[in-house]
Amino acid sequence: MAEIELAKGTKNINSEQKLVRNKVMNVLVKVFELYGYLPLETPTLQRYDVLASKYAGGAEILKETFRLKDQGNRDLALRYDLTVPMCLYVSLNPQVKLPFKRYEVGKVFRDGPISSERFREFWQCDVDVVGTSSILADAEYINIILDVFKELNLVVVVKVNNRKILDEVMEYCSIDKDKRNSATLTIDKLEKIGSDGLKKELKEKKLTSDQIDKLIKLICIEGNNKKKLDFIKKFLKNSEGIKEIEEVLAYAPDAEFDPSLARGLAYYTGIVYETFLKNAEIKTSLVSGGRYDNIIGDFLNNGQKYPAVGISFGLDRIEKAVKLNEKTSTKVYVIPIKQVEKSLEVLEELRSNNINSDMDLMDRSISKNLDYANTLSVPYVVFVGEDEVKKKKFKLRDMKSGKEEMLSVSELIKKLK
Amino acid sequence: MAEIELAKGTKNINSEQKLVRNKVMNVLVKVFELYGYLPLETPTLQRYDVLASKYAGGAEILKETFRLKDQGNRDLALRYDLTVPMCLYVSLNPQVKLPFKRYEVGKVFRDGPISSERFREFWQCDVDVVGTSSILADAEYINIILDVFKELNLVVVVKVNNRKILDEVMEYCSIDKDKRNSATLTIDKLEKIGSDGLKKELKEKKLTSDQIDKLIKLICIEGNNKKKLDFIKKFLKNSEGIKEIEEVLAYAPDAEFDPSLARGLAYYTGIVYETFLKNAEIKTSLVSGGRYDNIIGDFLNNGQKYPAVGISFGLDRIEKAVKLNEKTSTKVYVIPIKQVEKSLEVLEELRSNNINSDMDLMDRSISKNLDYANTLSVPYVVFVGEDEVKKKKFKLRDMKSGKEEMLSVSELIKKLK
Repeated sequence: MAEIELAKGTKNINSEQKLVRNKVMNVLVKVFELYGYLPLETPTLQRYDVLASKYAGGAEILKETFRLKDQGNRDLALRYDLTVPMCLYVSLNPQVKLPFKRYEVGKVFRDGPISSERFREFWQCDVDVVGTSSILADAEYINIILDVFKELNLVVVVKVNNRKILDEVMEYCSIDKDKRNSATLTIDKLEKIGSDGLKKELKEKKLTSDQIDKLIKLICIEGNNKKKLDFIKKFLKNSEGIKEIEEVLAYAPDAEFDPSLARGLAYYTGIVYETFLKNAEIKTSLVSGGRYDNIIGDFLNNGQKYPAVGISFGLDRIEKAVKLNEKTSTKVYVIPIKQVEKSLEVLEELRSNNINSDMDLMDRSISKNLDYANTLSVPYVVFVGEDEVKKKKFKLRDMKSGKEEMLSVSELIKKLK
Repeated sequence: MAEIELAKGTKNINSEQKLVRNKVMNVLVKVFELYGYLPLETPTLQRYDVLASKYAGGAEILKETFRLKDQGNRDLALRYDLTVPMCLYVSLNPQVKLPFKRYEVGKVFRDGPISSERFREFWQCDVDVVGTSSILADAEYINIILDVFKELNLVVVVKVNNRKILDEVMEYCSIDKDKRNSATLTIDKLEKIGSDGLKKELKEKKLTSDQIDKLIKLICIEGNNKKKLDFIKKFLKNSEGIKEIEEVLAYAPDAEFDPSLARGLAYYTGIVYETFLKNAEIKTSLVSGGRYDNIIGDFLNNGQKYPAVGISFGLDRIEKAVKLNEKTSTKVYVIPIKQVEKSLEVLEELRSNNINSDMDLMDRSISKNLDYANTLSVPYVVFVGEDEVKKKKFKLRDMKSGKEEMLSVSELIKKLK
């Protein structure tokens, strides 16, 4: 007999957690469709050569890609994100009308280091538009994020920046082109390492003190959007990046311009976003993304351009943040006291009125049944005994308060609905 | 550059298909929770030794199990069903209260032969109860199936039988115990091979003509439930199987007793079900399952008994059967005619009234926009031009009829809601 254990880096999601997950997913899907995005489902199993192609995820992610073979000895892999499968879909379906607006909620797999926050299989929840350069599309994502968190009763701030601004700032600071990607990775860690850490690491990366001071002066600014924009505009003349940010902020004024926002990934080409809880313990971004105008075209390599924007929701983090307490979706538990037939009738009435209902099927004692309903956190129980059947009134017990009342079936339905 | 292709035996699900899938899944989940079942999510990645253990799926399914290793050289596999992961959950969570009622909707993987109907990754949708021997639980599944198909507007017949009856019939026919499993597999093919095929195959399996004739006389009977039961009771005295079927039919009289129903899998121990569309092209079962009182206990091997019942919904087949025509979930497409600001205002009004809305973001011509909305099957478009803005009335076009009318924003909302 094998040792009965889960695979390393995986976990079971019990019903309480899964009920929360389902609620969050339903909110996301509802908002995505409200904005005209349609669902897509791509395969988990992919050809390894497709995932490993030069313009897919890159060498870093390949190290964490689970590989396997089928019986025909084909090289396969488990998808590590939802972006490459989307590119593949666009490539295999040239009839797809652009702009192509799709969302996908699906599991991805990464064979990387694990922690209490990092698992080897996890859900990604992506929403992307392919085929438009319009800044209106960039702005739309801010509104999607804000709508999602409004529905989830969470107060967030959406920070925006533009990769073009970062590049223009580095140009202004005379930072060599070949050092800019590496500097961007350091800037991305600002929140974590602070400005002293930033200085130290940029120094290690051979930037001069003058360059570092200038850079910090321009990206670490305080104040509202207007103040920050006015300040930075003094240094960047005719900036395309600033023009775009101003346009985005005109359409989505609730976003917060943060010129230090970098986003680690190299492929972003324009507006980028991160989303933080206001006044909360969780300091990491709940939703991130941005514009990536080159990767789909590079990947498809058919001579066409595919400008695109997309964001990814961190489901695990959002689930931790939402204050949903979903112990059960069952509303009431029926306890028959030697009255199985009548109990089944009551049960059927409740269910046909869309009240999630359960019943003891095992002829257990009242105390065992109460213990069961209590452990499962079912909020109400109904007793169906001889007395109840005679009076056509049934004892409903509120499991939290202990309060009991005698109700007819129609009163029960009214109360529980 | 890799050849851009999907892995063999996988497919993309486009938005039209996925919208149907989501609707079907939502109906299933709603009905499961109505009956007091709670969601569970188990990992896709599993330890190979667990999936390969003697009491898991058995040798046949192991041949079709995708195997892989992580960076720590651990032997892993992709789950091939949702039952073994459920057993594992019960084993790892001994505090779980019995009866444990759970459903899971998730992808499973099998590296087997493919066809237009068989893929290497597909959804399973299981609902099971662990820890009760009550026949009420068996009956409940018939009602779950009937409720699901009522919601989906499909007319089905649920056929039931009892493995115990089959065994008793074979006892009556003096068929050796060691031939019964094999005979059951043949009986399972009756629908496909007909009674002549059945005779031929049973003959090949060394049953005598007398045994075969007796068997066919008892399992191939016509008529309503009462007639069939009365007939079979003449031959089986004090039959436990018949007693159980009568009890199930008392609680779920709409099911159809079919003594020839076998279900291929060896592990069923009691009531079994299959579900067929009435008068339809699809002849295969849409939902199947039954009671399996031994496998969880055998798998956990802790000396306890875990009587269980469960059914599995064939999502792909149900999706093909439902007459849902989901071209898009988007209700209206806004076409700005040099009026982007005003169009965005209208769009926001629509969305804040929960109307799924899209808008041209690319400053395209009217004809290109109409073509786009038409290809995406969006049922309505709204034009926002100078004239409309002046009159505060907007032209709404029904894309199917071509009918146009001028409506205020509140009239638009009323019409589209």
